[in-house]
Amino acid sequence: MIIAKQFISREADALIAQSAPAYQAYEEVMCSIKNNVSPGKDIFILNDSQKNCNGVVPVKEECYRILEEDYHWYREKPLTYFHEDVQKGGPIDVYKAFSFRDTVFMAGLEFETGNISSAHRSMNKLRVGIIKGELDIAFLMMPIKRMSFYLTDRVSNYEELEPYFVLLDDVPFVIFGFDADEYNSDAPLLAKGKDGMSPRTIRRWQSR
Amino acid sequence: MIIAKQFISREADALIAQSAPAYQAYEEVMCSIKNNVSPGKDIFILNDSQKNCNGVVPVKEECYRILEEDYHWYREKPLTYFHEDVQKGGPIDVYKAFSFRDTVFMAGLEFETGNISSAHRSMNKLRVGIIKGELDIAFLMMPIKRMSFYLTDRVSNYEELEPYFVLLDDVPFVIFGFDADEYNSDAPLLAKGKDGMSPRTIRRWQSR
Repeated sequence: MIIAKQFISREADALIAQSAPAYQAYEEVMCSIKNNVSPGKDIFILNDSQKNCNGVVPVKEECYRILEEDYHWYREKPLTYFHEDVQKGGPIDVYKAFSFRDTVFMAGLEFETGNISSAHRSMNKLRVGIIKGELDIAFLMMPIKRMSFYLTDRVSNYEELEPYFVLLDDVPFVIFGFDADEYNSDAPLLAKGKDGMSPRTIRRWQSR
Repeated sequence: MIIAKQFISREADALIAQSAPAYQAYEEVMCSIKNNVSPGKDIFILNDSQKNCNGVVPVKEECYRILEEDYHWYREKPLTYFHEDVQKGGPIDVYKAFSFRDTVFMAGLEFETGNISSAHRSMNKLRVGIIKGELDIAFLMMPIKRMSFYLTDRVSNYEELEPYFVLLDDVPFVIFGFDADEYNSDAPLLAKGKDGMSPRTIRRWQSR
């Protein structure tokens, strides 16, 4: 896929310029988008035969697989704040702790597959992680509007959330708006729900 | 109803202590909760005969009616940022501009009737209003968990959103968690949806 749009907060911009692990985290997340290609192809081709004809979960799962297998990120990292302090709220989708010069740099990521209000919750969860000192940088990935038209109904898109990016300028936060490399009405459809997902063992934080 | 729980951000606390219109806005919103009583009673009695047996909309509409008729707030105020600049996003539910010593003090309010992710969106919309200089203080009203059990299924409650209040400390923001004065299995049920709402003309900002 391609990164069609991106938001880098002021804080994230400074951090990526100065910190090696921040730069590495940013690069790895970008690669999980760019290396997400159609099976047997070197680009990502999306079936555009009709509105909402593809599932979004296979797109997410392939980005997550790349992060886990190629870059050793973990899935489902509970934050101490949500898990122990307030005992509410789910884990961060994908997480990596970079060891660097006796320090640990913590990066969290969510790929948004819900509707627009769910995207607000994901954004807020990551921002809480930063404010509570449990994440040093956060990433959110969403399709751009053009691509979301052919994905699961009501999946949120980059442009919809964009008016709210002003809420993120005081934290290191990056939002990627990805798009297919090509559209073709003959391309295989992406399965909806969990149908057609090949079984694989995910790298859970808890079992590391 | 009673105000069972409340969050007042540091910024809101200072503002309410120093600014007459901020104090007045806070008082008026509190009154819209406290003066929300069952028809013909002087307290609010909620039917607790079974889970999700009451609609939440009549509770909201009565708070809004009090704000409009007793305190001259307006409904559906579009923010310039959302309405004109980015041309996305709905209006603020209830709004009042207080004229005070040649200045105007702007207060915005939402009564959350959606699920938890929708509550995140409401919170973010109000926070954007403050950051963009279109609101001087923001209020959010939600039932506490005990009360929400007897309201529309999946309506969000104060305790659910509470872990995210840390996101609000840098802006003047107040969140009220209201509760019924009494529970009784013989009390009249509150209608779901728009059924049983008595027709009335709302005070829209656009037609002021």
